[in-house]
Amino acid sequence: MNTQVFTARRDRLRTLMAGKGYKAMLVPLAANRYYLSGFELHDPQCNESAGMILVTDSGEDWLMTDSRFIDAAARVWPRERVFIYRYPVMESIGRHIRSLGYSEVCVDDQSLSFRNWKNMSNAISMVPCSGYVEALRLIKDDTEIAAIRKANALNHKVFAQIEKELVPGRTEREIAWMIEKLYREQGASELAFTTIVAVGKNAALPHAIPGDDIITENCPVLIDKGCRVDEYCSDQTRTFWVGNSPSDEFKRTLELVQEAQRAGISAIAGGEPIPEVYDRANSVFERHGVEKYFTHSFGHGVGLETHEGPGLSMRGIQLFEPGMVVTAEPGLYYPEWGGVRWEHMVLVTDDACEVL
Amino acid sequence: MNTQVFTARRDRLRTLMAGKGYKAMLVPLAANRYYLSGFELHDPQCNESAGMILVTDSGEDWLMTDSRFIDAAARVWPRERVFIYRYPVMESIGRHIRSLGYSEVCVDDQSLSFRNWKNMSNAISMVPCSGYVEALRLIKDDTEIAAIRKANALNHKVFAQIEKELVPGRTEREIAWMIEKLYREQGASELAFTTIVAVGKNAALPHAIPGDDIITENCPVLIDKGCRVDEYCSDQTRTFWVGNSPSDEFKRTLELVQEAQRAGISAIAGGEPIPEVYDRANSVFERHGVEKYFTHSFGHGVGLETHEGPGLSMRGIQLFEPGMVVTAEPGLYYPEWGGVRWEHMVLVTDDACEVL
Repeated sequence: MNTQVFTARRDRLRTLMAGKGYKAMLVPLAANRYYLSGFELHDPQCNESAGMILVTDSGEDWLMTDSRFIDAAARVWPRERVFIYRYPVMESIGRHIRSLGYSEVCVDDQSLSFRNWKNMSNAISMVPCSGYVEALRLIKDDTEIAAIRKANALNHKVFAQIEKELVPGRTEREIAWMIEKLYREQGASELAFTTIVAVGKNAALPHAIPGDDIITENCPVLIDKGCRVDEYCSDQTRTFWVGNSPSDEFKRTLELVQEAQRAGISAIAGGEPIPEVYDRANSVFERHGVEKYFTHSFGHGVGLETHEGPGLSMRGIQLFEPGMVVTAEPGLYYPEWGGVRWEHMVLVTDDACEVL
Repeated sequence: MNTQVFTARRDRLRTLMAGKGYKAMLVPLAANRYYLSGFELHDPQCNESAGMILVTDSGEDWLMTDSRFIDAAARVWPRERVFIYRYPVMESIGRHIRSLGYSEVCVDDQSLSFRNWKNMSNAISMVPCSGYVEALRLIKDDTEIAAIRKANALNHKVFAQIEKELVPGRTEREIAWMIEKLYREQGASELAFTTIVAVGKNAALPHAIPGDDIITENCPVLIDKGCRVDEYCSDQTRTFWVGNSPSDEFKRTLELVQEAQRAGISAIAGGEPIPEVYDRANSVFERHGVEKYFTHSFGHGVGLETHEGPGLSMRGIQLFEPGMVVTAEPGLYYPEWGGVRWEHMVLVTDDACEVL
């Protein structure tokens, strides 16, 4: 991507910072770092950082990373503003920020460990601040929406391709691998998240891990899957019935879940309150006395991360804004026989929404 | 895996805790959680926990998770000791631990964010403690070593299979995907980490991301790859020359790197000091005046995580112990033409080591 895109995003963050009187902000979270710089969308592993971005009021921003990434950094960032940290890492970052003339730095207190925070505090005064980069990421621009549409279109396509492969005798693991191949051979860079293929009772586990259980004649198969295209994620769920005799409880549950999804989506529009969505969906379940089987939120934002803001739960006072992309995914789960979840992605528009 | 394996691990942790006077320890890190419980090796995404394990002096341990995982928890843990936390999460966990009669809890301060730490501190006194579960994980038992041998054997096999596919015209991305298919179709559950396939100058990036660059006649191709089998990781690197005319600098660099690898491995043995390994490898580079092109440590432990303890750097006072599994991966990197890394996995034995 054009480096100007990233510069413009840092300038928007700078404006937010100025409004709060923040002079320097350190950004450790991988997705936030990438959003502001184009540098490394992923960390090597969850407990190991590939680097951080420092955004300052002077407009001289820094990419901070370790020696493994010197050359990778040089490909996206001016070398004279790459800081290569060494042991002790957090202290050296703090000292570097002080050397730039800042006596304090604000940092997202959710994306730095307690120990790292304490260690950096030995070198510079730290102010907890969170949600600033996330606030920018909430609203997708045209390029981001185009990427999400591509990732979502491939997700639709793979659902159409996989449905006919759901035949008795195949394992969850085999289906999950078929899905992954279909994604990768049709343009996805990777899975957006570990694919869920849950047969029978496993469909009662909202985050089931595909295993050796096999599809049988007349059983539910819940598939929750997504891929990454042009760096952006997609996320959809369908619950199929394999065989010609869906059980009454499956049919009834599927109808209720789809009705709840429609009810929730009807409340998604720019300017409307977000918690209303959960309420409308849950009201459908309450009318039928099944609300206790709906064990998670109605949905979540999707973008560089599969799970990002806004959360569509019963809490909060936030309003929908045009450019948000969220999932609509009510579900009902019954350990005795399985469950049903049904999920689409939805783009918020000025006074309505578009189901993608 | 047999639940007794996990119970025995918690009992060993309990013994370590007793030695320090700790009565209750909360374990948030995904790999540590899985190691102690068999519950969820992975979090849904890096900034979103699937749950934590509480180990107590009473022997009544708890699995704490959110409502999405109720049924998954019930499959590996007695329902009466599963705590389903709700908003506000950290406070409710702290209150639950207090309700069990503990006035303080020790927690790894590296695997809880600063904000989560502060929030939980509102409900219970917290003591930073880290490295206890990691200390157990350092030494692999026979089952773990068997899994690592399988993951490593598949890694060797895929290197043999992929070498002949390195032909001019193929992109890094294509090779990376061929590798992934070979793993998955021969028994791996997933990649251990994102495969590195780095052509030409890209080989100078120790953590290069496979892209659209193509293999040409007479160029280096660095491949660093690993897979997960029976939950355990493998990790190896080779640097190939495609074509019949390897450059002099490539040949010389490859010889030096392999010599440094042999020198380092010669210092790996139970009871010997870990930093000696880095020193011996680096001495080879120093003798030839190229040490500044060796930009990372000599290696790291491998197990449930690709990168875990012990680190094989110039620092520390730790000794090798039988049952440790580490990588031996020196490298030299030159932005002008690329680089060479060469990596094997090594099992530490009583008074020597075995290159796997």
